[in-house]
Formats: sequence, C-alpha cells, structure tokens
Amino acid sequence: MQKRRVKGSFKHPKRQIRSGSREAAPLSKEFLKKRIIPIDIEGINTISGMLSAFHNTSFQSRNLACCVEIFKKMLEDPDEPTVFLGLAGAMIPAGMKKVISTMVKRKMVDVIVTTGANAYHDLVESFGYYHYKGSPEVDDAELYQSRIDRIYDTFADEEKYRLVDRKIVALADKIRTENVDVTSMSSREFLHDLGGLIDREGLKDEKESSFVWNCWRHNVPIFVPALADSSIGLGLTQHYIKFLREGVRPLGIDQIKDNHEIFEIKRTAKKTGVIYIGGGVPKNYIQQTAYLEDMFGIPDRGHDYGFQITTDRPEWGGLSGCTFKEGVSWGKEKHTGEFVTCYCDVTIALPLIVKAVLERLGNAPAMKRRTER
Amino acid sequence: MQKRRVKGSFKHPKRQIRSGSREAAPLSKEFLKKRIIPIDIEGINTISGMLSAFHNTSFQSRNLACCVEIFKKMLEDPDEPTVFLGLAGAMIPAGMKKVISTMVKRKMVDVIVTTGANAYHDLVESFGYYHYKGSPEVDDAELYQSRIDRIYDTFADEEKYRLVDRKIVALADKIRTENVDVTSMSSREFLHDLGGLIDREGLKDEKESSFVWNCWRHNVPIFVPALADSSIGLGLTQHYIKFLREGVRPLGIDQIKDNHEIFEIKRTAKKTGVIYIGGGVPKNYIQQTAYLEDMFGIPDRGHDYGFQITTDRPEWGGLSGCTFKEGVSWGKEKHTGEFVTCYCDVTIALPLIVKAVLERLGNAPAMKRRTER
Amino acid sequence: MQKRRVKGSFKHPKRQIRSGSREAAPLSKEFLKKRIIPIDIEGINTISGMLSAFHNTSFQSRNLACCVEIFKKMLEDPDEPTVFLGLAGAMIPAGMKKVISTMVKRKMVDVIVTTGANAYHDLVESFGYYHYKGSPEVDDAELYQSRIDRIYDTFADEEKYRLVDRKIVALADKIRTENVDVTSMSSREFLHDLGGLIDREGLKDEKESSFVWNCWRHNVPIFVPALADSSIGLGLTQHYIKFLREGVRPLGIDQIKDNHEIFEIKRTAKKTGVIYIGGGVPKNYIQQTAYLEDMFGIPDRGHDYGFQITTDRPEWGGLSGCTFKEGVSWGKEKHTGEFVTCYCDVTIALPLIVKAVLERLGNAPAMKRRTER
Amino acid sequence: MQKRRVKGSFKHPKRQIRSGSREAAPLSKEFLKKRIIPIDIEGINTISGMLSAFHNTSFQSRNLACCVEIFKKMLEDPDEPTVFLGLAGAMIPAGMKKVISTMVKRKMVDVIVTTGANAYHDLVESFGYYHYKGSPEVDDAELYQSRIDRIYDTFADEEKYRLVDRKIVALADKIRTENVDVTSMSSREFLHDLGGLIDREGLKDEKESSFVWNCWRHNVPIFVPALADSSIGLGLTQHYIKFLREGVRPLGIDQIKDNHEIFEIKRTAKKTGVIYIGGGVPKNYIQQTAYLEDMFGIPDRGHDYGFQITTDRPEWGGLSGCTFKEGVSWGKEKHTGEFVTCYCDVTIALPLIVKAVLERLGNAPAMKRRTER
Repeated sequence: MQKRRVKGSFKHPKRQIRSGSREAAPLSKEFLKKRIIPIDIEGINTISGMLSAFHNTSFQSRNLACCVEIFKKMLEDPDEPTVFLGLAGAMIPAGMKKVISTMVKRKMVDVIVTTGANAYHDLVESFGYYHYKGSPEVDDAELYQSRIDRIYDTFADEEKYRLVDRKIVALADKIRTENVDVTSMSSREFLHDLGGLIDREGLKDEKESSFVWNCWRHNVPIFVPALADSSIGLGLTQHYIKFLREGVRPLGIDQIKDNHEIFEIKRTAKKTGVIYIGGGVPKNYIQQTAYLEDMFGIPDRGHDYGFQITTDRPEWGGLSGCTFKEGVSWGKEKHTGEFVTCYCDVTIALPLIVKAVLERLGNAPAMKRRTER
Repeated sequence: MQKRRVKGSFKHPKRQIRSGSREAAPLSKEFLKKRIIPIDIEGINTISGMLSAFHNTSFQSRNLACCVEIFKKMLEDPDEPTVFLGLAGAMIPAGMKKVISTMVKRKMVDVIVTTGANAYHDLVESFGYYHYKGSPEVDDAELYQSRIDRIYDTFADEEKYRLVDRKIVALADKIRTENVDVTSMSSREFLHDLGGLIDREGLKDEKESSFVWNCWRHNVPIFVPALADSSIGLGLTQHYIKFLREGVRPLGIDQIKDNHEIFEIKRTAKKTGVIYIGGGVPKNYIQQTAYLEDMFGIPDRGHDYGFQITTDRPEWGGLSGCTFKEGVSWGKEKHTGEFVTCYCDVTIALPLIVKAVLERLGNAPAMKRRTER
Repeated sequence: MQKRRVKGSFKHPKRQIRSGSREAAPLSKEFLKKRIIPIDIEGINTISGMLSAFHNTSFQSRNLACCVEIFKKMLEDPDEPTVFLGLAGAMIPAGMKKVISTMVKRKMVDVIVTTGANAYHDLVESFGYYHYKGSPEVDDAELYQSRIDRIYDTFADEEKYRLVDRKIVALADKIRTENVDVTSMSSREFLHDLGGLIDREGLKDEKESSFVWNCWRHNVPIFVPALADSSIGLGLTQHYIKFLREGVRPLGIDQIKDNHEIFEIKRTAKKTGVIYIGGGVPKNYIQQTAYLEDMFGIPDRGHDYGFQITTDRPEWGGLSGCTFKEGVSWGKEKHTGEFVTCYCDVTIALPLIVKAVLERLGNAPAMKRRTER
Repeated sequence: MQKRRVKGSFKHPKRQIRSGSREAAPLSKEFLKKRIIPIDIEGINTISGMLSAFHNTSFQSRNLACCVEIFKKMLEDPDEPTVFLGLAGAMIPAGMKKVISTMVKRKMVDVIVTTGANAYHDLVESFGYYHYKGSPEVDDAELYQSRIDRIYDTFADEEKYRLVDRKIVALADKIRTENVDVTSMSSREFLHDLGGLIDREGLKDEKESSFVWNCWRHNVPIFVPALADSSIGLGLTQHYIKFLREGVRPLGIDQIKDNHEIFEIKRTAKKTGVIYIGGGVPKNYIQQTAYLEDMFGIPDRGHDYGFQITTDRPEWGGLSGCTFKEGVSWGKEKHTGEFVTCYCDVTIALPLIVKAVLERLGNAPAMKRRTER
C-alpha cells in the first residue's frame, strides 16, 4: 500500500531527519530543497494560476494552495471517496450560496452537514426575499424598531422572515396531518421536504442558486444536527405548540435517526474526504462519523482527505479550532491521510478554492455521484 | 420605568454628546470624567480586590471587571431574573467542572445549555475516570495507537471512554424497555436521567464536583440541543441500531420537545440574564429563546443582562463571535439592558469572575432558586 | 467642498437615519437598498472579476473588494496623492517581493516604510541566496544545529545570511571611510546605499525582483525607523564596534533625521494615501506624519485614503490593531476620507488586490511619480 | 550539567516515548500520569493560590500558571540571570504603570525595551495629566474636534499632550546647548534624561508610580529602539527642525549606539531571562541580542528563560506572533531553556503573574540588582 504523507501543518518526515547525522551539511540539504518563488502577478491571468503560484509562497497563501491540491486529489481518487462538507457561519447572507450550489451541481460534494441558519437563509432567498449590504456601525436599537436584523455588515428583513416561518409551520402541519404514523423525522428528511417546498413554491429564477433545492434535486443529503437551534427549529416549535394545544401529537425531529443515517453513509463509503467551512457542530459531526465506526469495532476508518477554512485557533481547546493532527489521536482522521488548514475568512477562501479546482478539472470531476456509484 | 444603559462595548451616551455644543471645552469635560487608575497590585489581597481594580484599567481587564459587576447585578435584581448559562468548549478536560458546579450549588445559574461533550466528560469523571495533562507537541499517531485522545494540551483515556459509552447504551436500553410509551425524549429529560445514573453509580467523592449531578440534585435543567453530536449521541446511536436490529422501536431524542420546554421557562420568567461561555449552539440557542417569544406575539422580551467570554470576533459574521449589540437588532437582547463582552480564554476568565462574585455576595446570592420562586 | 464618506467599517449615514421617522417602513427602505448578490464563480474569469463580485458579498470578501476600490481611487485622484506603503511581517520569505516591486515599478506607491527584516531578506535574495519551503512541525533544535533559521513554515540558510552580513559591514566601513564628515545617516539614506550595493553586486537576474533595488532605481524612499532592530542593524553594530575598537568614530543611524525627511514629504504632498500591510512601527510611523504636521500648526492634515490588511484586532488596545476610525480622533486620518480594513493574511490579500487594481488601471496608473510631479 | 526541559507548548519528552514500546499499555502509562484537577474556587483565597490551581487545569490558564513558575525560577536562579522586559502596547493608558514600576522596584527586571509611546504616556502622567475611561463606540470626528485622542476604550487629552511635547523639545534644546560635543545620543541615554526630567519637574506623588522615574532611580536602562516613532520622537523632531533653521546642528538619536550598549549588557550576563509583553520591536530587539553574540563568534548564547503574553499567533509568519520554539532555530533561545507562551490580553495576565510571583517570593527576589552584582 502506498503511504501518503500528512500535508500542511504537520508535513515533515521528522523521524528520518532525526535519525540522520548531526552534521550540518546533509541536514541542510534535506531541509533546503524547495525554494520560495516570489509570486509574479504580472504573469498570472487566471484564478487557478494565482492559486498555483501560492504553492511556492508562504504562510496562509501556501495553505490555500494546499486546499486546492487536496480537494482536487480527493475528486480524482479512483476509489471515489465520499465527500462531506461541513458548513457553519452565515454563508447565505454572505453571498456564498451559488458557490455551494456549484459544488453540488458539479459533483464536488456528496453530503452536507450544516446549521439551520444556512438552510433557512437559503429558503428565504428562494422565495424572492433577500439580504442586504449593511454595516456594523449602526444603531441596532433603530434597526430593531425598523424590523431589520443585522448579521455583522449585512441586513435582513424581519417581516419577510416571518412570511417564511409560516411556510415552515405549514409544511410541518401538512407532513404530520398527511402521515398519521410519522411522529418524528430526521433533520435530513425534513431538509429534503424543504427542498421539495422550494421546488413547488420557490421562484423559478431562484431555484437554480438555492443549495437546498440543488441538494434535493441531485439527491445530496443535508444533515442539520442542531435543527432546533435555528429559525427552522422555531417554525417547527410553533407547529409543535399549536398541535399540542389542539391535542394532536406533533411532529418531532429525532436527532438519533440522523446519526443512524449518516453512519450508514460513512460505513458504506470506501474512502472519505472532509471539508470544514468554519467549525461548530458541522465539523464535529463529520469528525465523529469516523469515531462511531470504531465504536462498532471497525478500526482505522478515519477520513482520508480533508481541508478546513477557519479563523478559530487550537489554543483555546475547543473543537472548532482543533487541528487535523489532533483528530488523528482520536482516529477521526487517518495519520496517513492528506490534510491542511487554511486560516482565512471563508468568504475570501472558498470562492477562490472552488473556482481554482473547477478550472483544473475542466469544470467538473469525472467521478460519478455517490448515489450513482 | 428606570432606563438602564447598555454597558461595556457600547456604553457612551452618544445622543446627548451629539446634540451638545461643538466647542471643545464642554465636550472634553463630558468625555474626560473618569480617570484611569493604575492598578496597584501591592495593595491588593483578594481576587475580588483585583477585579475591582480592573474597573479602572483598560482593554480586556476592564471588560472582565464589567462581567463581575453585571453578574452581581443580575443576581441581586429584586425581579429575580432567570439566569441561562451557555457552555461551549471542553470545560471538563479544562478543569472547570467545579466552577460550574459551584455556580449551580450557589444559585448563580438557573438553566444550562451546553454541548454533549461537556456533559459526557463530566459523566466520565463521575465514574472515577479522569483527564490528564498533556501537550499539543506530541505524535498523534502514537497517541492513536496508545488509545489516547488529545484535546489540545490534555489527554483522555479512550478505553475508559468506552466503558462509559456502554453505560449510556444501557441507560437508553433500560429507559426504552421500562417505558413502553416513551419513544422519544427531550435532551433535557435524558440529561436528567444521566444525573440519576451518576447518583446511582457514580463515585461518592466525585458526585459533589459533577455539574450534571448537581443540576439533577438542584433541579437545574440542562439542555443539549445537539446531543446527537457527541459521545452521548453516539451511545444513543448504538442503542438505536441495536434495537432496530432487534425489531424494537428505539429511543429517539426529539429536539423540538426541548424547544418547547425552554420556551416555557423563558416565557414565564419575569426577567432573564445570559452568560455565554464560548459560542456555538449554546449561545445561539439561548439567544433565540427571546426571538421565539416575539414570534408568538410577545414583544420586547430580549434578555435583560448578559456577559460573554469569547475568543471569537464579530468580523467573520458568525453567531459565535457576534456582539450583544448585534443581538439588539434581532430583539434577542434589550437595548436598555446591560451587557459586556470580554475577549479572553474561558479557563482564565471564568474562575476569576465566579470567585469575585462569590466574594462580593458573601458566598451566595440571597435570591431563591427559579424552581422555588 | 465635496465631502467623502468614510468607507467600510463606519460607513452608514447615521445622523440622517437618526433624525428620520420612527415608523418602520421609510427606515427599512433606507436600510434595505443594496442587495447581496451571490457570487457566481462559473461566470468569473479574471481576478479583477472575482474582486468585483466580492463587492456584493459580505464580511471580509466585501472589505477586500473595498481595498481594491480605494486603492484605485487614490491612484486616479487628479490631486495625485502621495501614497505611503507600510510594510511589516516577513514579506520576502513569504514570496511577496515581486508584488512590492511591481507596485514600485507601476507607480502605485511613492514612499515605503518597512522593517529592517524586509529590506535584509530582499538584500539576501538579490545576491542569489534564497528562502525555502519548510514547516512549523520540525525539531527546531536540529534546525539550529543545521544552521537553518525558521520563519513559521519557511527556512533560511544561516550561512548565507552571514555572507550578506559581511557585505553590510563592508558597506558601512566604506561609507564612513570615504566620507570623513559623515558620522550618521538617516535609515533612508542607508537604504538607498543598499540599493546601490545591489545594483553593483547583486545578481543581474535578481535585481528586477528586488524591491530595494527598484526603489533605488525609481527614487522611491525607503524608511526603516527601527533599522537597529534587524540584521542590517546588527551588521551596522559589527561595524560600530570594530571602528570603536580601532579608535575611529563609527557610522551611526540618526532616527530623527528620518523624521525630518518624511515630514518634508508629507508636508509638501497635496493629499496622501496610506496602505498598511500589517501593523507595528511602519503603520504607526506613517500615521504620525499627519500628527506631526498638527504639532507645527498645520491642521486637518490627516491622510485622505487608506486601506489596511491585518490579522490583529482593536480590542487589545495596541496600535497595530487599531481602526482607521480611532485614527480620526487623533487627526491621523481625515473623517471625510475613505478607509477600509480587511482582516486577512497578507499573503492572500495583497497579490489579489494589486493584481485587480492593475487589471482595472490597464497595468499602471496614469499619474506621474511623486518625484516627477 | 543539568539539562532543563523546554516548557509549555513543546514540553513532552518525545524522544523517550518514541523509542518506547508500541504496546498501548506502557505508553498510556507514560502519557496519563498527571491528572487534571478541577479548580475549586471555594477553597482559594489568594491570587497566588488561584495561579497554583491553574497549574493543573488546561489551555491558557495552565500556560498562565507556567509563566508564574518560570518567572519565579529565573528570579531564584543562583546564577542571577539578567532579566529583559519587552513592553509593547499602550500599557500606561491601560493602567499597567504601577505593575511595571513594582517590577522595577522589586528587582524583578534588569533591562526594559519598550515603545516610545509607553515612555511618553508615563511622562505625561508624571506631570499630573491623565488618561480617562472611554469607549470605542463614539463618534471619533467629535473627539477630534474636542481634542481628545482615543486609544480603543480610553481617552487622552490632546492639549495636555502638547504641554508635555514642549518639555521634550526644551529638554533636547538644553542637552544640545549645554553639551557642545553631544550631537547624538542613544535612546537609552535620552530616556535616562527623561527620568531626570521627571525627578525635577514631575509631581511628587506621581513619581513613585512612574516606571521611567523608577528606572532612572534604580539604574534600570530603558531602550526605545524606535524612539523616532513616537511622540517623544516627534518632540525631538521639533527640536531638530528648530535647530536646523537656526543653523545649529541638532541632537540626533543614534540607534546603533543602543545596539552596542545592549549588546554589552547581554555579553556580560551569565544567563538571561526574557519577558515579552506583546510583540513588535521590543520582542525582536531582545531576541536579537542573543543572535548578535553568535555573529561575534560566541555560540549558544540563547536566552535561558522566558515567557510571553500575546494575542498574536504564529501562522501569519510575523515575529510578533512567533513561538519560542521558532526562536530556538535561530539560537535566540536555548533549546534546553524553559519557555512558555500565554495567549491572553496583557491587562489581565500581567497583574496576575506579577502579584502571584511577589506573593511567592515574599515580596521581592533575594538576588541583587544587575548593577550591584
């Protein structure tokens, strides 16, 4: 078996060097092999070209280039790894919706784990309600009175949000009413139904850019492990309380059902790649799929490839900022795998990475979708 | 009605100043009222004394002092606000368990929202299995082979974790078997049962320091909105798969039931105070309790007091790093409330804050517990 | 006089909104004017195109787009502002040398303020000694024995550094010996002589990419206020001690002479733009040129345009992380100016910004060099 | 010779473990030796007690405890190491003045390297002008008009600053006029004269808390390598321009003279300890004293002890955020030394560390001052 080296932040073949001679010369030769090549922007014309040049620079630009390389490798691996995308943060108000949809359409991702907020904001926009350029330097008390919600430098229209909330309540009412036996669903199932809702009621022009709809259409499961912790969850709570008051058992969301489902996807995958956009539950949830297998006596099932874009850092001890190297100790990542962390705001890094990979792959990987393999 | 000023990062009475004269003198007087007083450590003997001195210094030490002041105020408010504690991060391997337990025992907190990891690690230690001082500078592949899990600079014993996992599976089996009608629980209910498990099977000496047990004993509800995303969730998944294979409907965890429960607590509280230790789901989940009320037509129910300890920052647009000021636009926080953010590692800030508040309150607030009011 | 709005983080016309009606509708209209437009990477082909799309996204990508816009504006202002570039960090080992040289060659910058390290590393490479791709995950004790210096993920060859040090000593010896009256120089003067040294002794192929040489050639002054705090300063110290031992008064570097020189440049500029790549002395030193004018009774001479790329943050109270908004209180920046901060690693942001500006300006601004105006 | 282990972030005895058996058990024993002990704030009464308890917690609290331990060790080392304190940031507006003065008075520090701002603000306060509690949430344009300077959440009185500036100009005029031969000084010499100025003209009550005065009194040299880059430098520039206009050669500040002076201090020290409060020039300048010795053929003269308090991080590649481990590759730190980094705002960490060390040492180390040894 060919052994892969873990990339990026923990790359060097320490042991060999350690056992090497203490004389300066041979060691220096070992260490001083690959020159930094100053980036020459005048000769660069494409985003892929920029990212290639970053391979020979330093610090986070080099890590960004490594993300492109690793993403490309996982999409070209003949073992067709199942690619999990963990998506935290407010990606839709940030304008990242189509980047994610492109990843779904172009077969660059097989499974999405995200926050309820990302799914909710996508839903909102699919009905023709939008987010707006704002500023953090405003009087938030006035925004409150104007029914405008602020997400750092971006504004949302509270009244439109309430219109969408009603659609969520109505969907839950409908599902429960039409299915006497269904008293609980996984978040994955409910997200699929939201995709169907967009297909039926969303604006025609907006569907194409909705990632929830694209996932629905291409059979890419979306898991929202903390669905209750979002406006979708609040809509479901309104349904819940309403039905309780009416004496009808309401629709619940069973988290453990989700675990079972994602476990089956992981278990049946030959290999896996992971992409962590921010931290939080999405990152940890994808990490633990490998850990769960070990619990069932399936050893060495850590993920094979991965990159993460984060602005968090390891020294606070939280999972969001932890390194892939730390994950190796848990068996969440294979120590023979290829991983890199790039410390950068996602809104800069993600479009660059996905565009560069697309340019290099001729717009889509050759591999089949997970569901068609 | 007495109006409170929002503290800390958005403190200044802008409007008055704005409408003031443009001449330098009167404005300068307005701005230059409170001198910075250099901290004199030689005259300080207590932690409360240090924190008092921080009131007249700058940057994050002043914010830390503000946390103490606001915490004290919410505990002394005659309206007896219900205090929600959001707890992210790996607080138990960090050695913060007794600080949280002290907060529970001393009636400083009424409701806890946390990650599954915090509850799990607390459970582990209550059975006499521990965490250990380690280092991030180790070979994680060797840790993996040694069955040691790393949490930044701290080690856990994988074999002991597996022993605890079996107890979780057994508990779920038992609950489901003994209660024919119970096919799903809220995370809050399951956490309460875990408290009971500790009471029955935990080490006598360890119970006192377990926050899950203390919550069980003192009727402080623990919500874990993303319970599936933790080792507790993985244990429940083992139960789930086992029962499915046996043809028995397994126990699920219904997230929406949790929402209903915490909504009732928020709805019936006269006032509320919030403490965010880190971000993630716990912070957002407590934030949204206020937002949910608005959905039901109960306006201006934002939280009244709050402080957060975080190392995240607002400019990435995520909820974990957002300011209280941003929350005002959503109605999650009252703009007349008192709030402050201290940017600091929790393991430093939390023990200092809780100790200083205890010193000032004569070891416990005078108010009654939420459940006894 | 046409009034400019301060951009980016403190953009919104607060006052007007404040005096507006309290009814939701008109305020909402005011706030919800500019939609976030999801970035569509499939339709983007150039770096300038990517940066344009970032104008309508959020968080740091929008700020990155603002940097491009403000940089372009300052280069197109008919008043021909003098552009000061503050350059901290290890930009040459990072591979950013040619980006800076391009800025000098293309008339995008008039004055550089930097650390001694940046000038030194540029000097090293001009003699054909290089920096190398390394990793932070190595045994630094072994690097030490191998005479390899580490700069995060990049390696330097200590033996080559020593060869360059000797050239610095020799240059100082020569200057002092050949100029009986010259007992001290400004850092600006010494840097110019280093440019001459590169011209005489540097590798032909390397000169073109050296920013010190390009500055020498195009008469762009380089100030290194803390020159002593670098390997150049250490070389000068070797010269100093050698001459002292020989009983000859050595060459000194007079910091205040630098202040006088940069003050004259600022004083005679009609307008000024500032670019802060990282913080430290370069940022503060450029900031204070405006403050110094005020000391001489020349009011309202704050800089007119500016952008900064930083990973530091304001809440620690240091100058490196301070906002442009804070600088307004000091008169360092005009409150009517246009400024933006982008929180990003420089090695990613700088090449993107400079490339995008070049694409938009047809490869160089039309304005004349400062020295030719 | 007894070998010391490098502490904190690179603590573990890797080699021994590496050569150990691959069986889980013995390795686990090796790794799982020191239990995390939950901090029990109820039993803690002193700051030293809190810091001792932090020794057995995790993340940054443990690193904070390590700072105390290493500081104590360097003060108790019978070889009497010379202790260098690097001081960046706005420590005086932050209220940290007396903490630094205490360190000077109690013989905890032998040499200070700082920014001009720290010395300037100390000077300002010694004349009875102060800094004030402010807020970052203000209109900085109004502050400008009110002649108030903002430092994050702290205000300064511009008019008082100008009074102090005149004293600096007058001092430079006087020095130059009274000493015909003195055309340049080191920053260290000028700072000493500023100490004398405070002694003559400062308020009696304020002297005791001034760190510049305490250094003057106790013969602790203060180096300000980038003195030009501060209000002191601007005052000197006013003097410079004034004298130039009068046709008199003005007083310059010769940076290289400083290098010579600090080099002599380092060269003659048996051992050295370093404390970095923030990064910037002070940190690098102290680092390079060890590097300079190597240039003169004195090998293995890296610092022996050190701790740093920072909020910067290594992955941007800058010197401010670099680890001690990186410094080992350069020979700036001994790989057998004891070092730790604590990621925390200085205004919280520094008073705690200094107080805890004082409590443990019975209020002052037993060793003699550097100048009395």
